[in-house]
Amino acid sequence: VPYRTIWVPLCEVAATRNSLQLPANHKHQNGSPFPTLPIIQDPLAVAPAATTTVTSDKAVVIGDSFDIALHLQNTYLSVSPNAEKRLFPGMERGVVALHRAFNMFVDEIFRQYGAPLAGTYMPFDPRTAQSDKAAFEQRFPGNMKWDQFEIPQGSDPRKKMLFDFRTALDEKLAPCFQSPGVVGPDGVARKPNGDGPFMDGRESPMYADFIVGGWLQFLRGCLPEWPELRDSWSDGRWGKLFNALEVWASIDGRDGVIPARP
Amino acid sequence: VPYRTIWVPLCEVAATRNSLQLPANHKHQNGSPFPTLPIIQDPLAVAPAATTTVTSDKAVVIGDSFDIALHLQNTYLSVSPNAEKRLFPGMERGVVALHRAFNMFVDEIFRQYGAPLAGTYMPFDPRTAQSDKAAFEQRFPGNMKWDQFEIPQGSDPRKKMLFDFRTALDEKLAPCFQSPGVVGPDGVARKPNGDGPFMDGRESPMYADFIVGGWLQFLRGCLPEWPELRDSWSDGRWGKLFNALEVWASIDGRDGVIPARP
Repeated sequence: VPYRTIWVPLCEVAATRNSLQLPANHKHQNGSPFPTLPIIQDPLAVAPAATTTVTSDKAVVIGDSFDIALHLQNTYLSVSPNAEKRLFPGMERGVVALHRAFNMFVDEIFRQYGAPLAGTYMPFDPRTAQSDKAAFEQRFPGNMKWDQFEIPQGSDPRKKMLFDFRTALDEKLAPCFQSPGVVGPDGVARKPNGDGPFMDGRESPMYADFIVGGWLQFLRGCLPEWPELRDSWSDGRWGKLFNALEVWASIDGRDGVIPARP
Repeated sequence: VPYRTIWVPLCEVAATRNSLQLPANHKHQNGSPFPTLPIIQDPLAVAPAATTTVTSDKAVVIGDSFDIALHLQNTYLSVSPNAEKRLFPGMERGVVALHRAFNMFVDEIFRQYGAPLAGTYMPFDPRTAQSDKAAFEQRFPGNMKWDQFEIPQGSDPRKKMLFDFRTALDEKLAPCFQSPGVVGPDGVARKPNGDGPFMDGRESPMYADFIVGGWLQFLRGCLPEWPELRDSWSDGRWGKLFNALEVWASIDGRDGVIPARP
């Protein structure tokens, strides 16, 4: 399916949602609205799902990653003869609901640790950096100034948060990426899904893998300790996942809009 | 598969695990061990999975609900010709990993709210009640006494916690039980999974439904506000789920061991 990407600086996120009449899709812990991207505008889709908005030119507009994935699955992938290519394999069997919970589960971990550890190191476009930082300050409740968000590198609070982050990934997420052992009636243990880089040791990704992959991309671009996370945390599992997802990581329209990937 | 249930009073949980050489399977927030039941002893299984222990009489011993479900699936259900009867439908496709995360996700919600709101109202067997309460005190770090655990009915802290519990179930769990809408190429919205009581609106349960159902059983037996939760929270969804799971709720060996169900 042909598509085109429009990159939006942080300072334009709220205005972009407003211009498409999309209310904020997330909430801060104190309940205040938290507008985020991405948004998809799909002029090819003929009718909206429950979570979509239809603009005056009849394009379907969806403003949440999870709903976008569901829309793409339902509109373009459910007819694929290759079940392995589906974002929600076996979606008739509760897999969407399990993904919905997984999305919240993963978001909680990375928002608690990844966002505060990495957010202040976002490589802003110099042309909008000042406005982006002001928007960043406004995005969070509490009237904090840009410099106050940083958890300084090498400081004890940062060391503790990095340790807790590493532990959470180890205890909560890493077990989901190991292949479950199965013992057959003959008493022989097997790994039916192989030992691949994706969830349950699969060799091909499902949407859940992309949920984690999206957060890893954010950390790759922002977290000073990214090389350590990638290579050493959870026995290198996150680097393995990141590398396996790299074939899907090229996106059009980056050049000249956001800083180049290092 | 024939089975027999041995009920264990709270004061014997730790000793029961020890006698089967099973280390504590959970940890408190401060990292200290938290031994729990159930345990399964399976003399029919021929070989252990990675997470099992083999006792001297060669029975397989597993001491965690999730691992027990996986063992039952692998040993007795994976050969079922009826895929709908499987605890982990489509388990070759990442569904086990998604269940693993869902188990943690659900546990976090109910441990945060359900356990403190309901735990002190457990209907102990009068013969062991005193020892059970002493064991309860020992189970939690901080040297708290039995009476200090209660969050008094009608108090403001309880009202706030009930509100937060209700909100968490509404925002995090209820969306997983709604059937995802799907719009076909003809522009007509369908609910491919119907509007059943189980996850994604399914008509038959998978293990994820039983995870929530187990917590609902605990609340049914202990939470003073259970009738309200069952009938009113999330538009009655939890009562609908609870009722649909009742056909699986009868367990042998209760009579005379624990207080009768009201």
